[in-house]
Amino acid sequence: MSIHIIGLTGLPEVQTGDDLAQLIRAATPVVDRETIVVIAQKIVSKAEGAIVDLRSIDPSELARNWATQFGKDPRLIELVLRESRRIVRMDRDVLIAETRHGFVTANAGIDQSNVPGEHFATTLPLDPDASARRIREGLGCGAVIISDTFGRPWREGLVNVAIGISGLEPLGDLRGARDRSGRLMQSTVLAVADELAAAAGLAMPKSGGVPVALITGFDWARGVGSAQALIRAPEKDLFR
Amino acid sequence: MSIHIIGLTGLPEVQTGDDLAQLIRAATPVVDRETIVVIAQKIVSKAEGAIVDLRSIDPSELARNWATQFGKDPRLIELVLRESRRIVRMDRDVLIAETRHGFVTANAGIDQSNVPGEHFATTLPLDPDASARRIREGLGCGAVIISDTFGRPWREGLVNVAIGISGLEPLGDLRGARDRSGRLMQSTVLAVADELAAAAGLAMPKSGGVPVALITGFDWARGVGSAQALIRAPEKDLFR
Repeated sequence: MSIHIIGLTGLPEVQTGDDLAQLIRAATPVVDRETIVVIAQKIVSKAEGAIVDLRSIDPSELARNWATQFGKDPRLIELVLRESRRIVRMDRDVLIAETRHGFVTANAGIDQSNVPGEHFATTLPLDPDASARRIREGLGCGAVIISDTFGRPWREGLVNVAIGISGLEPLGDLRGARDRSGRLMQSTVLAVADELAAAAGLAMPKSGGVPVALITGFDWARGVGSAQALIRAPEKDLFR
Repeated sequence: MSIHIIGLTGLPEVQTGDDLAQLIRAATPVVDRETIVVIAQKIVSKAEGAIVDLRSIDPSELARNWATQFGKDPRLIELVLRESRRIVRMDRDVLIAETRHGFVTANAGIDQSNVPGEHFATTLPLDPDASARRIREGLGCGAVIISDTFGRPWREGLVNVAIGISGLEPLGDLRGARDRSGRLMQSTVLAVADELAAAAGLAMPKSGGVPVALITGFDWARGVGSAQALIRAPEKDLFR
């Protein structure tokens, strides 16, 4: 297997209403059915208008108290609370929440980096799978992954993971397969979509400017796909 | 940035005492200072003799009781307990432990896949950073990462992460840098080594046969490096 990852430069600053498929096609000569296109959540949110003017937000007492304690913007905390369906941890200066989609991440995925204007923050796309599907159809590529950087328990640093998927099976299921020794492999399910998102992240510096990466040479299991398959069901989750 | 990942085929079945640098050099024409070599933990453990004959293990009552309840091998559970410095969760049929190195992972990293002989299991290398350093020096490549597949809270599927590092700074620290809007980036530390391990994982199928991947075209921050930097300190960890 020989895999190739290219960061796509030359995209303009994305505005609300932009057609991302069109912008990506204009910036790259070849995107075919063998290409996986990984797109940073930030530009999908911008294109879809998932941007909030913090001046429109009236923070609750909870948001005000907690923000004051840790030197944060109470309007931003209020926005996190509104975007969450469950608070997983609100401890020290860390706020980890379950988003409306079921993703567990810091600040429910809300952030201000690479958003012009000090009063604005992006929220996650309303339906990232649907966003991925629209872009894949517009581009005619093999698969689209919308990625975001998530923290992890126990390990330092953020990694890119898949929050929206179209055109690939996110989990490479080897249960029932046998290893080279002929042993039945019992719990080996690889999160292929997350590894693709992480690989693309290497070509997409967080400081911005490269919000899209193209992956070729990877042989993947095609399918409708959904990032929902990457969310552990509550009854199986030991770290709720 | 144009990154290239190649899975290395043609390595022989690794035996205790093998010189991995020598085996890898024999299997690939070019490994230079611009190449990052990612090596699956399994073959490092095999080469270093980190293999345990389960017939030599006398399970404790705790191991026997728990194994019986969930249809597991009590000797394997006993081995996990011995390799752990702390049990993080022992709930339902899942045993998550902190290894002697500080990694938190299922079964303390012990497993039987791709280990010939039904009575054998590999443990993690004693000092994976030292293993990485030896192999890097033997190969003369730019960096070495020893990878293993870890599960994650909240998300389904395993991903490859770095458990041993030599020649690269594992965390790409952007704190204090500014984004394209000129905003100071506050908590954006990317786990570069884990993204490299995940990228390599795409070229290393779990069913075996490709335990090494070569990454070229990636511009990384060179340094001594240690996977210890990826372990969150207990006082900062909300999910102990």
